[in-house]
Amino acid sequence: MFKARLQNIRQKLKKEKLDGVFISSVSNISYLSGFTNFSKEEREAYLFVGQDFAYIITDGRYSEAVKKQVPHLKLFERGNNKLVEELFKKHKKEIKTLGIEEDNLTVTEHKVLKKHFKNLKHFNVSNLRSIKNDEELGKIEKACQIGDLAFNFILKKIKVGVSEKEIAHELEKFIKENGAEFSFNPIVAFGKNSSVPHHQTGDKRLTINDKLILLDFGAKVDGYCSDMTRTIFFGNPSSKQEKMYKVVSEAQQKAVEFINGAIKNSQELKAKEVDKVARKYIRSQGFPTIPHSLGHGIGLEVHEHPALSPKSRDILKEGMVFSIEPGIYIEGFSGVRIEDLYVLEKTGLRQLTNSPKEIITL
Amino acid sequence: MFKARLQNIRQKLKKEKLDGVFISSVSNISYLSGFTNFSKEEREAYLFVGQDFAYIITDGRYSEAVKKQVPHLKLFERGNNKLVEELFKKHKKEIKTLGIEEDNLTVTEHKVLKKHFKNLKHFNVSNLRSIKNDEELGKIEKACQIGDLAFNFILKKIKVGVSEKEIAHELEKFIKENGAEFSFNPIVAFGKNSSVPHHQTGDKRLTINDKLILLDFGAKVDGYCSDMTRTIFFGNPSSKQEKMYKVVSEAQQKAVEFINGAIKNSQELKAKEVDKVARKYIRSQGFPTIPHSLGHGIGLEVHEHPALSPKSRDILKEGMVFSIEPGIYIEGFSGVRIEDLYVLEKTGLRQLTNSPKEIITL
Repeated sequence: MFKARLQNIRQKLKKEKLDGVFISSVSNISYLSGFTNFSKEEREAYLFVGQDFAYIITDGRYSEAVKKQVPHLKLFERGNNKLVEELFKKHKKEIKTLGIEEDNLTVTEHKVLKKHFKNLKHFNVSNLRSIKNDEELGKIEKACQIGDLAFNFILKKIKVGVSEKEIAHELEKFIKENGAEFSFNPIVAFGKNSSVPHHQTGDKRLTINDKLILLDFGAKVDGYCSDMTRTIFFGNPSSKQEKMYKVVSEAQQKAVEFINGAIKNSQELKAKEVDKVARKYIRSQGFPTIPHSLGHGIGLEVHEHPALSPKSRDILKEGMVFSIEPGIYIEGFSGVRIEDLYVLEKTGLRQLTNSPKEIITL
Repeated sequence: MFKARLQNIRQKLKKEKLDGVFISSVSNISYLSGFTNFSKEEREAYLFVGQDFAYIITDGRYSEAVKKQVPHLKLFERGNNKLVEELFKKHKKEIKTLGIEEDNLTVTEHKVLKKHFKNLKHFNVSNLRSIKNDEELGKIEKACQIGDLAFNFILKKIKVGVSEKEIAHELEKFIKENGAEFSFNPIVAFGKNSSVPHHQTGDKRLTINDKLILLDFGAKVDGYCSDMTRTIFFGNPSSKQEKMYKVVSEAQQKAVEFINGAIKNSQELKAKEVDKVARKYIRSQGFPTIPHSLGHGIGLEVHEHPALSPKSRDILKEGMVFSIEPGIYIEGFSGVRIEDLYVLEKTGLRQLTNSPKEIITL
């Protein structure tokens, strides 16, 4: 599988007239090496790939593990006395134009590469990840199932006096006990806190006046993420809150129908058009526009290609997995978001998260 | 406090003849804003600071929270219709030379800035964080104390048949129940796995033949990290393993004494000299050199300025908090590492992690 992925990279390099590529993003390194232990917060590895070579560059902390787990890439161990620049010198002649990940490579790294290679040109590795194979899809589906189980479990834990952090902690315990990890720090928002789309889960305790609970969380299985949001009612919601819920739910449904219609008619599916359908509907019902994208691809990263946003140039294709997550947020009052993951199949969308979407009132 | 930090930035800008700075690293954004909810894996915010203005740039997901929690910075909400470039245009005239974080800013971001500002020059924000004030030190000390408690707790959980992941999970539960978080995914390595300095905690179960257990973990309190490593024996270690332990422990002690000696004599303390002392000692005892740095600063990030490494140019100063963590790793056999955090005070080092360092045999 990893050899096939390398092959894809090499074909794409040829097509774009590049002689090689220097890969710095951790998710792409994981995707091409299968090694998932590098920190996402620090630079611990790179890949350097040409038509006739493929190196994984890392340091002594990882070299023994990499030797064992990544036999299809040649290990270059950089250390106190060994600079990556030796490697560049060795391959200088074959590499006239080198691909780089401009949206990931730092200015400092760019300066080093610039010393060795004449032409540096943006090369998009991430987009190769957007179409998932069966193995990847299986992992995402499993992560979604664990998310659904966690949602069902957490409903029983919601009661007056519990704090947002306690709910997040219970979610985490459940997800870990089911063999997965969090794919991101979950958002648990009670009452007015729900009107902040990315509320920081805090010490607020639930009261009967809070009315609304927003839960946004995901599981991660073998590196592959799920992501879902449900908004549930606590006590009796006001008619405005019910209206918000109904409109958000319909906006999601309209986006789904739009995609399925286009698939049926074999039309090209622009991601930004999907975003527009949901956004327009919410505005038409007298609510403010969605202050974030309608959706995003997901896989080794929680947010990856494609983007379902107003300025997206992405085209939705078979095999892509993405979220559709409209929301309405009214500052100081309430927020409602509903988010599910879908895979785009030959005949249309298949929903991967399957928690109930009817109004739940606890 | 945040105003004083901004003031420091502005003074440093003047000194380096810069008219402003564009800050992209999440830790520096947290340091200057006090807002700790931005993802470290994605670009969700920037700071843009001049002598007469200071903006925090983020999107609709965070704007309500930022408005409340970050009153000392002006919010610029970028959205679907509002580009950060409007902000740049507004301040174009005052900013002839703009500071950037070259080791964090991406090539793509650099291109955008380049369109608006004539001169872009590296500006190091991170180093401002290396000297900790009392409040910061208090948080790190608390994180260290929780780490010590966790180590004491976990000793009771180590028994034949337990897996590395289970030990990691128990550590995490304990740390969370004590009100903290993991500062990084812990390394739990049984037996031969200890010879990989950054072993990926796995499903291996402990047997009586494993002999060695390496635990490297830390807690995080209000964003501030601790970090410690202990290697303990299980069953009877071989004399070679005992020798390794003794040499590592002595190497750490020698580094500490070197620092205290220099402080006593009011000598300038080059971080690389400290690294050298420990490294040389280990080599002199017939063991391979340390395949990583001797130590690193710590704070909002697990690894930050200063670096105690062979090529470091950093000078150790009063108020800095850093690790000293020599190690010996013999592939396919065993690894031993001992790591503690220290704060450099007027009279010398004060150790912040206080778990026992005598040989522990379970």
